[in-house]
Amino acid sequence: MALIVQKFGGTSVGSTERIRNVARRVAKWKQAGHDVVVVPSAMAGETNRLIALAKEIQPDPDPRELDVIASTGEQVTIGLLAMALKGLGVNAKSYTGAQVRVLTDSAFTKARILDIDEQRLRADLAKGCVPVVAGFQGMDEAGNITTLGRGGSDTSAVALAAALKADECQIFTDVDGVYTTDPRIVPEARRLHTITFEEMLEMASLGSKVLQIRSVEFAGKYRVRLRVLSSLTDPALPIAEEAQSGTLITFEEDEKMEQAVISGIAFSRDEAKITVMGVPDRPGIAYAILGPIADANIDVDMIIQNASVEGMTDFSFTVPRGDYAKAMEIARKVQEHIKAKGIFGDNKVAKVSMVGVGMRSHVGIASQMFRTLAEEGINIQMISTSEIKISVVIDEKYLELAVRVLHKAFGLDQPA
Amino acid sequence: MALIVQKFGGTSVGSTERIRNVARRVAKWKQAGHDVVVVPSAMAGETNRLIALAKEIQPDPDPRELDVIASTGEQVTIGLLAMALKGLGVNAKSYTGAQVRVLTDSAFTKARILDIDEQRLRADLAKGCVPVVAGFQGMDEAGNITTLGRGGSDTSAVALAAALKADECQIFTDVDGVYTTDPRIVPEARRLHTITFEEMLEMASLGSKVLQIRSVEFAGKYRVRLRVLSSLTDPALPIAEEAQSGTLITFEEDEKMEQAVISGIAFSRDEAKITVMGVPDRPGIAYAILGPIADANIDVDMIIQNASVEGMTDFSFTVPRGDYAKAMEIARKVQEHIKAKGIFGDNKVAKVSMVGVGMRSHVGIASQMFRTLAEEGINIQMISTSEIKISVVIDEKYLELAVRVLHKAFGLDQPA
Repeated sequence: MALIVQKFGGTSVGSTERIRNVARRVAKWKQAGHDVVVVPSAMAGETNRLIALAKEIQPDPDPRELDVIASTGEQVTIGLLAMALKGLGVNAKSYTGAQVRVLTDSAFTKARILDIDEQRLRADLAKGCVPVVAGFQGMDEAGNITTLGRGGSDTSAVALAAALKADECQIFTDVDGVYTTDPRIVPEARRLHTITFEEMLEMASLGSKVLQIRSVEFAGKYRVRLRVLSSLTDPALPIAEEAQSGTLITFEEDEKMEQAVISGIAFSRDEAKITVMGVPDRPGIAYAILGPIADANIDVDMIIQNASVEGMTDFSFTVPRGDYAKAMEIARKVQEHIKAKGIFGDNKVAKVSMVGVGMRSHVGIASQMFRTLAEEGINIQMISTSEIKISVVIDEKYLELAVRVLHKAFGLDQPA
Repeated sequence: MALIVQKFGGTSVGSTERIRNVARRVAKWKQAGHDVVVVPSAMAGETNRLIALAKEIQPDPDPRELDVIASTGEQVTIGLLAMALKGLGVNAKSYTGAQVRVLTDSAFTKARILDIDEQRLRADLAKGCVPVVAGFQGMDEAGNITTLGRGGSDTSAVALAAALKADECQIFTDVDGVYTTDPRIVPEARRLHTITFEEMLEMASLGSKVLQIRSVEFAGKYRVRLRVLSSLTDPALPIAEEAQSGTLITFEEDEKMEQAVISGIAFSRDEAKITVMGVPDRPGIAYAILGPIADANIDVDMIIQNASVEGMTDFSFTVPRGDYAKAMEIARKVQEHIKAKGIFGDNKVAKVSMVGVGMRSHVGIASQMFRTLAEEGINIQMISTSEIKISVVIDEKYLELAVRVLHKAFGLDQPA
């Protein structure tokens, strides 16, 4: 008998019929003898509807009041889901974030969880009751309603699992797990049975949008076993089968049975590259270039500075494609100011990243990657590496080809 | 400078445009130097939408969870209204019932307010802030969300006014006050400038659906000055004019400037009459007849038992027309059981009531009423009187005629 936190996303609770399916699934785990805490999101589309309503009043809505409004989406779902569970004869009870209570800071619309008082939930669990807790929301020290920002229900679920020292936090979503890469590009992409937190963080931040990145960080920090599962399977799927489906995100590398060097290939199309050429190589030059970009609230991703030749260097960085025009305008002014020789931009680039904890103990991964791309005539424009990741920037038109050849070259299409 | 609680109904906050109008009206009072607490309802149609959603899950929804769901309607409005006020430069802050806190009993879907902690609101008011408090909802001792039942926002507003010892509680609605009778039947009906609580209670329970009856009882009990006002007037209407518009419901009969004997004529079409004839007149017979009716959850209104003749009496009562068939079926069984001579029913009857505190000190009102009806050939089937009310049951087809002739006979069409 285990204590399990189950989180269901907006699509999974998108209609009363789907909410009834969620109830069936939860009831199955409960009836198998497990203690279950459920965390649903708002019904799909509801949060957007509420925010649109607020924007009709104020184009730039007051954040405290926006949270009061937006938090009602989850409040409706917890009531409906608790009802549906009772309808199946399962003892259930809904709780808002404030009722639990989920204590957060006062950063409205993007609050962070500080503490969870799990006593009330423990008392319910002891009585065989299934607490249904609103995701995405909490309460600050002064009793104000707060929300955690988009995707915050994942974080709520993980935080509850941490507070309750749950055996597992299951995130039910409309994908059935984490894949070696996007199956729309590589049909041979395989679902990973396990992945480590570090790998997941690199995968998530690089565009494999399965879990909210903050929830993964949270799970890693509090050592919560996290499992991504499909909410589209038959709710009556046998427990033993469901328990092993999806992808387990583990903090124990030992638990990772697949010992492939590379776990997956992430990529992003949303990239643009800017190179400032012939920059005088002196202290503070990186800040002189990137400071004004950061001041304009533009997120800089990769940053590369080549070795200096004759006191001059080339300085390249990538920005989200949507910020390209603005970033170029700023960079051009900086270029004139610092008397660099020239500036060059390209908003038709993409980033491909290979991720795997196995890289730590394997050499030659990078060179194998570069050779594979070279064999296809794909030019590498920028390279950036971390302990468990190698990213390259290439011409956007080669993106699909690059992902496919790397996926095959590293044997990701073979069962581990 | 006064402390005023302003309540706005569902139609008044039915769209973001209307919410902006409400904000303009509130801002006007605030800017005139008054302290204002605002209590909005859910946007028109929203509570019904939420309840329909709940019924899709459970035809007979769990009451605790229904309250969790239904209370979100007002929560959205308080956020939107607080935003709209801030948009006008008015310092404002929203509160759910639980945040205030409005303490209620645990009778979900029809909870009663036990206490209000007004400290938080007082602190806001002292800082020049306008608290926007969700109507219709509260929290029980255990922290569960409760609702007060349909129309409960009126009660919330009055309870807040009582707790804060407000100078006046203003109920803005889509009528502009209380009339001598329904203007759709008597075009000469006049708006009353003042009415006493007792009169209002008799008028409200008899069908002049302006205010929720419980809120009037509450206002009477805690001596809250209550004013019904129109939310359809220009929000920029000068304060002095608005302050004197609508109808003031007062607990001081002295404050009632219009000294007419009769204040108004209420009526109800939704009536049916059942008479059990030749009932053996012995103790317990009323209970024998009405007990089974009450057990079937049928609301009995007027009850009349004639004087006994030769140990036999006739026993009549009225029920809501929708319950007529069921009530007749029950009464027929009772009739056989108690060996009464016969039973007679009529579901084409209506009730007309004249209400006025002036009756206390005036004799002859009843006989003038009966004569007026007799002159028009209208037969009176049942009569029931209280200290400030006379009700008669007549054939439904004479209802409009009866109301018109009484309205004229008692001079209600003349300015007081």
